[in-house]
Amino acid sequence: MGPVRDANPTARILLAERQRRDVHVVVNAATSADGKLSSRRREQIAISGPEDFDRVDRIRADSDAVMVGVGTVLADDPSLTLDDAERRERRTENGWSPNPARVVADSRARTPTDARVLDDEATTYVLTGADAPDERIDALRAAGAEIVPTSSERVDLDAAVEQLEAAGIDRLMVEGGGELIFSLFSAGLVDELSVFVGSTIIGGRDAPTLADGEGFVEEFPALALEDVERLDDGVVLTWSA
Amino acid sequence: MGPVRDANPTARILLAERQRRDVHVVVNAATSADGKLSSRRREQIAISGPEDFDRVDRIRADSDAVMVGVGTVLADDPSLTLDDAERRERRTENGWSPNPARVVADSRARTPTDARVLDDEATTYVLTGADAPDERIDALRAAGAEIVPTSSERVDLDAAVEQLEAAGIDRLMVEGGGELIFSLFSAGLVDELSVFVGSTIIGGRDAPTLADGEGFVEEFPALALEDVERLDDGVVLTWSA
Repeated sequence: MGPVRDANPTARILLAERQRRDVHVVVNAATSADGKLSSRRREQIAISGPEDFDRVDRIRADSDAVMVGVGTVLADDPSLTLDDAERRERRTENGWSPNPARVVADSRARTPTDARVLDDEATTYVLTGADAPDERIDALRAAGAEIVPTSSERVDLDAAVEQLEAAGIDRLMVEGGGELIFSLFSAGLVDELSVFVGSTIIGGRDAPTLADGEGFVEEFPALALEDVERLDDGVVLTWSA
Repeated sequence: MGPVRDANPTARILLAERQRRDVHVVVNAATSADGKLSSRRREQIAISGPEDFDRVDRIRADSDAVMVGVGTVLADDPSLTLDDAERRERRTENGWSPNPARVVADSRARTPTDARVLDDEATTYVLTGADAPDERIDALRAAGAEIVPTSSERVDLDAAVEQLEAAGIDRLMVEGGGELIFSLFSAGLVDELSVFVGSTIIGGRDAPTLADGEGFVEEFPALALEDVERLDDGVVLTWSA
């Protein structure tokens, strides 16, 4: 016999489903035809083109926050702000911040204080784990970051997303990298996945892929292919999860 | 000044192009949405479905030979023969062998003598490298394999494809794995790439991907997206290379 709290497992699952669906998580990425985000050197590679950049900017504009893992901050130093000034204006007219907030999953608080995600263009949340050094947390706070602490060694994404939701984030866009994307799938937090598949081969058993981490070995997340759209010289595949 | 043999480099390049194009190389694979061929355990995973199996069988039937790397033989023990009896009959009516020949890229001649690719259903070529032990080569010959020796440590794919061409193979289908596919792209031997992208996530930084190997870091092979077709619960992307 299971413990008493399992007496009504269906109700528990439904509750988990409902909680999960409060924050809508959209993962977006561009990969080579062989599923790589960049080369083994982790240098940024122009996989897509202007049509896809505009598509990405549109999804950003529709989001409350844009999230990346610290590996992406360290490798690419993105700003994650909107390119299109009109989109910023439209957000402002709607009473939103000009840019979506930024979120960095950064268990050990390694985000450099001069990273572009810490400029003044938007609010930035840094999700940390139990082992993040106090002095790094203090430095990031001094640089303007809002710290979202979680109590596990790696960022507890469920707990962090709950805290982001309490801060008013209902629609969260995730732009990588592969470690974060795998962790989000692993936590069952992904609602939608869009991948621009570009017309090149990157190759490399050590090159970062769309979903890295430990990998699944038995129960693989099932997606439903919702849309296929040719764009630039590639194709955008959109799945619901 | 370059050496005399470079006096007409254009003619040499054209000759190389012509030679390369004599054998048409079609790479076909099924990956998860994140570009994986299987999990980190290298177990076979049903990524596609009956429509894609039929598509693969059709490409096999149109090929003179079907090629895999020895890793695929060791992991999956495929037979690489045709599923559809009518396709075998049609080949026989055309004066062809009922099944396409099989080719294993196997530098150290590790193919087990009881591997299904060595059954009596078709001719099997094993491409070996300079370090393949003589006793393994003898064992494979005794098991019915045609040995295609090359003189480099890893299989010299250019030289091997030339020998296959001399054996009458004009249309070569490649079914993986990622190490062989990367090597073929690296050697500039791929003419066409078809990928069934399935509606699941496998994940895993150590899971095999469509193109593994060392990976490209600067000059990435450029593909042209020729066709996009929804099939089963996924999509088939076809590129020319």
